[in-house]
Amino acid sequence: MSDPKSNGKTFRPRAETPKGFRDYFGTEVTERKAMLDKIAQVYHRYGFDPLETSAVETVEALGKFLPDVDRPNEGVFAWLGEDADWLALRYDLTAPLARVAAQYRNDLPSPYRRYAMGPVWRNEKPGPGRFRQFYQCDADTVGAPSVAADAEICAMLSDALEIVGIPRGDYVVKVNNRKVLNGVMEVAGLAGDDKDSERGIVLRAIDKIDRLGDEGVRALLGAGRKDESGDFTKGAGLSDAQTDVVMGFISAKRATGAETTTRLRELIGTSVIGAEGVDELEMIASLLDSQGYGADRIILDPGVVRGLGYYTGPVYEAELTFEILDEKGRKRQFGSVAGGGRYDDLVKRFTGQSVPATGVSIGVDRLLAALRAKGRGAADSAGPVVVTVMDRDRMADYMGMVADLRRAGIRAEVYLGNPKNFGNQLKYADKRASPIAVIQGGTEAEAGVVILKDLILGAKIAQNATLEEWKDRPAQVQVARADLVSAVQKMLAQ
Amino acid sequence: MSDPKSNGKTFRPRAETPKGFRDYFGTEVTERKAMLDKIAQVYHRYGFDPLETSAVETVEALGKFLPDVDRPNEGVFAWLGEDADWLALRYDLTAPLARVAAQYRNDLPSPYRRYAMGPVWRNEKPGPGRFRQFYQCDADTVGAPSVAADAEICAMLSDALEIVGIPRGDYVVKVNNRKVLNGVMEVAGLAGDDKDSERGIVLRAIDKIDRLGDEGVRALLGAGRKDESGDFTKGAGLSDAQTDVVMGFISAKRATGAETTTRLRELIGTSVIGAEGVDELEMIASLLDSQGYGADRIILDPGVVRGLGYYTGPVYEAELTFEILDEKGRKRQFGSVAGGGRYDDLVKRFTGQSVPATGVSIGVDRLLAALRAKGRGAADSAGPVVVTVMDRDRMADYMGMVADLRRAGIRAEVYLGNPKNFGNQLKYADKRASPIAVIQGGTEAEAGVVILKDLILGAKIAQNATLEEWKDRPAQVQVARADLVSAVQKMLAQ
Repeated sequence: MSDPKSNGKTFRPRAETPKGFRDYFGTEVTERKAMLDKIAQVYHRYGFDPLETSAVETVEALGKFLPDVDRPNEGVFAWLGEDADWLALRYDLTAPLARVAAQYRNDLPSPYRRYAMGPVWRNEKPGPGRFRQFYQCDADTVGAPSVAADAEICAMLSDALEIVGIPRGDYVVKVNNRKVLNGVMEVAGLAGDDKDSERGIVLRAIDKIDRLGDEGVRALLGAGRKDESGDFTKGAGLSDAQTDVVMGFISAKRATGAETTTRLRELIGTSVIGAEGVDELEMIASLLDSQGYGADRIILDPGVVRGLGYYTGPVYEAELTFEILDEKGRKRQFGSVAGGGRYDDLVKRFTGQSVPATGVSIGVDRLLAALRAKGRGAADSAGPVVVTVMDRDRMADYMGMVADLRRAGIRAEVYLGNPKNFGNQLKYADKRASPIAVIQGGTEAEAGVVILKDLILGAKIAQNATLEEWKDRPAQVQVARADLVSAVQKMLAQ
Repeated sequence: MSDPKSNGKTFRPRAETPKGFRDYFGTEVTERKAMLDKIAQVYHRYGFDPLETSAVETVEALGKFLPDVDRPNEGVFAWLGEDADWLALRYDLTAPLARVAAQYRNDLPSPYRRYAMGPVWRNEKPGPGRFRQFYQCDADTVGAPSVAADAEICAMLSDALEIVGIPRGDYVVKVNNRKVLNGVMEVAGLAGDDKDSERGIVLRAIDKIDRLGDEGVRALLGAGRKDESGDFTKGAGLSDAQTDVVMGFISAKRATGAETTTRLRELIGTSVIGAEGVDELEMIASLLDSQGYGADRIILDPGVVRGLGYYTGPVYEAELTFEILDEKGRKRQFGSVAGGGRYDDLVKRFTGQSVPATGVSIGVDRLLAALRAKGRGAADSAGPVVVTVMDRDRMADYMGMVADLRRAGIRAEVYLGNPKNFGNQLKYADKRASPIAVIQGGTEAEAGVVILKDLILGAKIAQNATLEEWKDRPAQVQVARADLVSAVQKMLAQ
């Protein structure tokens, strides 16, 4: 950084957010808040308690410190604190939960159901729609070994999607189990420690089924695949027989949960871990059934894999099934907005004891985008009634008017800029999306009246070539000052 | 940091927040949220829009970079980002507002009314009740030169305090004007640039009037003051006549605003800046009067100074006037919970152009503490109904029960820990502050009934020596499974 005083000029800092960060204004804030408030209401009803951890953690607790290097991992924002401790901004809400579960293990109820909503930070390359600070919204149950906990979270996720405005039929929660997949790996002869790399390729290939289709995934399971640009991705090198086993697993989904689990039992053969996985899926299906969550909301789908090493049992994902137009104008399904699963080793890092845990993370920005796509994003975004200032010396009168309006619960402002140019005041009202401007000049004040200008109507008239249809609705009315509140209420109700 | 693998032992990270940071659980989160939601409702009604800036700013934009040193100021958490830019966590909500006002000056409405609520970070020595991350709640108007903007914020602050539960009479918003103080400095012969240090001592002395009383402040204005421990604080070295002028200003408050401004006019003599200040105070009083904010809510008080260089005009402060017991059991007034004023030079740093601004910051933690002291903190902190698990194989039945309860809007959980020890389940229910435990063993299941255990009543019985008074209210009832929801509703309503 150059010397602020160089060149003898006064130093002017750049008025910019750092690269990859952004500001949120007005309805961007209130719409997200309204959505999260509704989700919190569901979580609360399910007995989940809020937890707000600090944004700053020790790098040690986050687990992003590699023993071979003297700096924390890339990917986190970190700095060297006092006492030679590296500090960092949390990169998700799960790592802090694991720390809390270990730190307060003697005080927290067990099982501990908690939800958390807030920003997380990633020191990654920003891109279109990808920021270095973004919201997460998580719910986890720590200390519950039973898959009843997983079933509960799937039901809660379904309720959460509906409460924010995704109607039943426009989403589906898909459930799978990593143990079944492990069983399939055994059957395909991919179980040993020496097959780690192959299993990784297989998992990543399955994750791409929606994008690449059967043929593309088959190629990745076998020798490899050349993409449209000509780039070659090395495959897992599976034989045709092995590939058939894996592909059979991905396409094991049947019309009903019972048929799907029957098919899975065939696929996992004598694998013990596989059988355990299918049993768990059956249990989850039966528990959801008993709560009234049918296939119109939650289904078993062996195509769901969700990433790599993290998960140890059930995994789940919420997909929005309605179509939107992508950037090229093509129809496509909206896709995934939430996902999670069972992970049993995060607390163990701290205590040495394995603690079963399961949880879901909702993609806040994606779900908000979905709601906006469905026209359901709108929170209360009404602009204020603007009381204009015709006579600077009668500011007290104008402030009396806004006070009256506010007392009636109406959002209202007096114009506080330089009142000299009345056009500027109307421009201001326009920028504020104000529905009504209140005007009182000297003549009106003497007569004890105010003028109400219907700005929404005014905008509509301005858009229309013909005035005909607005003729019988005046864009401006004069009412007694004493009737200000009732007249504004009437105009707002139109 | 030592090598994680040293000693051949597995490395276990410490499960701790960094020093000076803390976690917030359950009602700590919901009570603060409920309070901020109510305040936001008032701000919204006044036409203020929410703004959420990123937690991370360039140090350059925050203005905490000193040209002589190669690291940012102490007091902020900062690190060197890519591109050799220093990044830092915001230390308040005003500096980011100044950046936003400059960055978006062509797009924002002018005047721009915005509110912001969120955490800020200070790299300062933590202490009891002092943390390195805490909430601020600000409302500011940028671009409004008129003191009508200051009056509006005082009225809004008054409304905000009342809506969260501080009754009228238990608080007062005090208004003063730095220009009056500057006028008094002129009269006292302390106006020149060479008197900077004396003015600083005078300002700090006035700020201590509540704690030190007249005599202590007089000593600080004069030669200096020895405190109880024997430490000596050097005074401003004012003559008796100068001291009288300053003390006259502090004690200029009269029964009515009109009497106070009359007294202030006497004190400021022929000072032009002082006269401007008194005019502004009169204007503010008149504007508040026109909105119905009388001396029971907002008063002129020349004793309010609010810190040093920052403010340029009106300053204001909200004080809670009810008494609490301090840590030594002595009665004292609760004191200040919010403050602010007019500052005209923050945006200028970026653009070179002076932009008038005024705003208030509510001390979120202090106001929350006040509400708790008044017994008004409670949000919905009811624990969930806990459905216990008597028979592991009938988990589906138990989950059906909680689903029924939730559908009726009742917060409910099934016990998800190991169900073997029933005592653990009741201990869990106790830890969750559960009002009711639902029990259904095999016998009850066959009979189609459930047992409801009134845990609140049970706790009361446990506290009481005699059972007499509870005799006619059984702590446990048996109802038909079909009546579960209505019976729970009835019990909760008791």
